[in-house]
Amino acid sequence: MSKINLKEKLSLFSEHWSPKVISELNDYQIKLVKIQGDFVWHNHSDTDELFFVIEGKMNIEFENETIELNKGEMYVVPKGVEHRPYAENECEIMLIEPRGVINTGENQNDLTASNDVWI
Amino acid sequence: MSKINLKEKLSLFSEHWSPKVISELNDYQIKLVKIQGDFVWHNHSDTDELFFVIEGKMNIEFENETIELNKGEMYVVPKGVEHRPYAENECEIMLIEPRGVINTGENQNDLTASNDVWI
Repeated sequence: MSKINLKEKLSLFSEHWSPKVISELNDYQIKLVKIQGDFVWHNHSDTDELFFVIEGKMNIEFENETIELNKGEMYVVPKGVEHRPYAENECEIMLIEPRGVINTGENQNDLTASNDVWI
Repeated sequence: MSKINLKEKLSLFSEHWSPKVISELNDYQIKLVKIQGDFVWHNHSDTDELFFVIEGKMNIEFENETIELNKGEMYVVPKGVEHRPYAENECEIMLIEPRGVINTGENQNDLTASNDVWI
């Protein structure tokens, strides 16, 4: 086990909407993602999902409100709740969720990323 | 559920070695801690523990090595592994671990903090 530098890990990839695992905590995974543009509506029926903004600004749209997250802010999307992340400009975020979670939930489509990809 | 601003939460307390819960992710808790000086040797026999440095610099001493963590760096201490955190100057960190974890593990002493204190 080595220490993990977030900026160093973020320098290793450039594609959007493709979570990279950087560490595990018991059966949870810590992931980094770069996002830009619109994601799809989806939910995770079995788990909450933590978003933490490392750099930039993002939004999470829900049925009745939209949350704006800036650098240094986090939000936990409760399990089963439909949400749609989006970011006007590139935003770097950390996700924390149990091992095995698919980025688009059960809404598989072009944005569904390979799971369990480590950097 | 509201979004959580780490700096705002950190402005609400000043004591050292006293973790404050800011959010939950399923049965895991996200905690903020300010540390300065030496902590005690301890381990958590049932769980890994994630340290993430928000501001400052800290060290985690193990039996055979010492890890230095700077701002933006994280380290997951594996379950059962004896460790001793310390920081020369005040350091602000985020901890992630399952609900119910005691900061000093089974090594209860003056530094054992109240558990499940939310801010």
